[in-house]
Amino acid sequence: MGVPGQPMVNMADVAERAGVGMATVSRALSGAYGVSEATRRRVSEIAHEMGYVVHPEASKLARGATGRVAVLIPQASRWFFGAVVEGIERELRRAGMDVLLYQVPDADARHGFFRDLPTRRKVDAVIVVGMPVDDTEQQALEALRVHVVSVSGRHTTFPFVRIDDVEASRQAAAHLLALGHRRIGMIEAVPPSIPEWRAEIDRSEGFRAALARAGIPLDPALTVRIPWDSEAAALAMGKLLSAPEPPTAVFVHSDEMALAAIRTVRRAGLRVPEDVSVIGIDDHPLAALTDLTTIAQPAALQGATAALMTLALIAGTPVDERVTVPTMLVPRATTAPLPR
Amino acid sequence: MGVPGQPMVNMADVAERAGVGMATVSRALSGAYGVSEATRRRVSEIAHEMGYVVHPEASKLARGATGRVAVLIPQASRWFFGAVVEGIERELRRAGMDVLLYQVPDADARHGFFRDLPTRRKVDAVIVVGMPVDDTEQQALEALRVHVVSVSGRHTTFPFVRIDDVEASRQAAAHLLALGHRRIGMIEAVPPSIPEWRAEIDRSEGFRAALARAGIPLDPALTVRIPWDSEAAALAMGKLLSAPEPPTAVFVHSDEMALAAIRTVRRAGLRVPEDVSVIGIDDHPLAALTDLTTIAQPAALQGATAALMTLALIAGTPVDERVTVPTMLVPRATTAPLPR
Repeated sequence: MGVPGQPMVNMADVAERAGVGMATVSRALSGAYGVSEATRRRVSEIAHEMGYVVHPEASKLARGATGRVAVLIPQASRWFFGAVVEGIERELRRAGMDVLLYQVPDADARHGFFRDLPTRRKVDAVIVVGMPVDDTEQQALEALRVHVVSVSGRHTTFPFVRIDDVEASRQAAAHLLALGHRRIGMIEAVPPSIPEWRAEIDRSEGFRAALARAGIPLDPALTVRIPWDSEAAALAMGKLLSAPEPPTAVFVHSDEMALAAIRTVRRAGLRVPEDVSVIGIDDHPLAALTDLTTIAQPAALQGATAALMTLALIAGTPVDERVTVPTMLVPRATTAPLPR
Repeated sequence: MGVPGQPMVNMADVAERAGVGMATVSRALSGAYGVSEATRRRVSEIAHEMGYVVHPEASKLARGATGRVAVLIPQASRWFFGAVVEGIERELRRAGMDVLLYQVPDADARHGFFRDLPTRRKVDAVIVVGMPVDDTEQQALEALRVHVVSVSGRHTTFPFVRIDDVEASRQAAAHLLALGHRRIGMIEAVPPSIPEWRAEIDRSEGFRAALARAGIPLDPALTVRIPWDSEAAALAMGKLLSAPEPPTAVFVHSDEMALAAIRTVRRAGLRVPEDVSVIGIDDHPLAALTDLTTIAQPAALQGATAALMTLALIAGTPVDERVTVPTMLVPRATTAPLPR
């Protein structure tokens, strides 16, 4: 900011006082790679003491035109989106970039964001989490030369990080089959605003394919399709328990919905896992605390990977643009062998 | 952005085409209050069609110097912080402001943020969630004329939104006392990096005062002090269950830690609430799904209130700078009357 009444300090002054080159000052203050933490700290302290203000243009090249990345999520209070943002923010800030956070809960809000983007032009890239981007939106982004990376989706035309949802639900089905279950139910969830969204369709397909391969015919009475909502999952479990021949095990599309389903089982006077086994997807932090068996997906890692991908795109360096991170079974206390 | 080869479009062009005044165009594009949604949408579409780009300076007055607010949270994946951010982002964006999100997990990271702030000067305000701001940091903010609002803290020198932690723990104690419990334990948690942090101290004091008023002498064997961590809470419950005379009810400083404590009770072959009643604080979304009795605090409301306070400070309009939002008992299935 400069001390009032004193001449402005420039980068050369800071470099001289710190005994380093101007490039090092620039990299240290922009948080770019290739500067030791000790040097970064010392340069930063000297710059601060001298009242030196980085001119925004000075560090444009290293950090893109704006130094900012927009992150679009449906809702900040939901664990998965928060965990992805945790990974994104950590990696982007390490590289000296800032995160602008936007909640776009539905398609209208998403259209609004992309409609306003050209009149603002304030980010170098957009990371889109847990939602699709339609063709019109994508063309607008390309025209603006704003990079786009998708987390938790699958897009053939721009870079993505995701899990393999078909494989995740195969793992869930395989666990229940290995425990001897044959009447296996599924509570399948679809976000109401985006019925075409792949992830949930893949979760249903992976489950059905695994059962088919095990020679188990599909019983339509054992699948309940709901919007992505915990209370809906609680009701869905009630529907499954009301079937003439209820399932002995149930696969639910997320941990939060699985916990809601378990509440229904307990309220019905039945026991988990003795009467019904339940498995979710996520490894939500509360899954460990509630002893919930689940298929774990690394949420913060998906965010961190998307951030590194974004930095590479901004820098123009080559990067693997289609990353699938692994999922795995975490067996806990809500699944058990089928009683003989 | 302007179409290549064509002259730049200015705000007057957009106003003429839309048949409104320039002030309306400015307010519509900046998202300021006082413009109908229909007008906002039409002006925005016309501006987009004409390739009009808002000059960043044009809307400075309505939205502060930068149009951005920094939000500091310890960790994006934890429910409370995510829910506060949800409320903040919703209200700030409605007013046309953007949220820059920063995770500062400990005191070092916080010092780093405030050290770098002067050399960046890119926000009009900072909302600090779930952490203290020390005197040095506060003086730096005042020198920069950056507004500061605190959520989930108590500060005498700058505006805050919070719950009354003494009252919240009194409510928890009162519920257990009303159920007839007399041997009441507490798992009290302290964030290791900020031992002076008021909230947790208040939660302990409110609980102790309520027991004292009920004429119940304090038994040191019934309180376990831990860092703010679920696994630590799980171990703490084991310690309470190992006491020569274990508690019949336990108050835990958060829902997540309460669920961890319940897991320990169940693993010990005991039942909740028949053998031990457990109550938390928060009303985490999973509290409803796990039937956990708790003292609810409105997290998103605290965020929204902080955002509105921030907007008033930027605009220079009067605002209540000390807001305490209410907490309330949500009785569910983890607390029950003391068996006779």
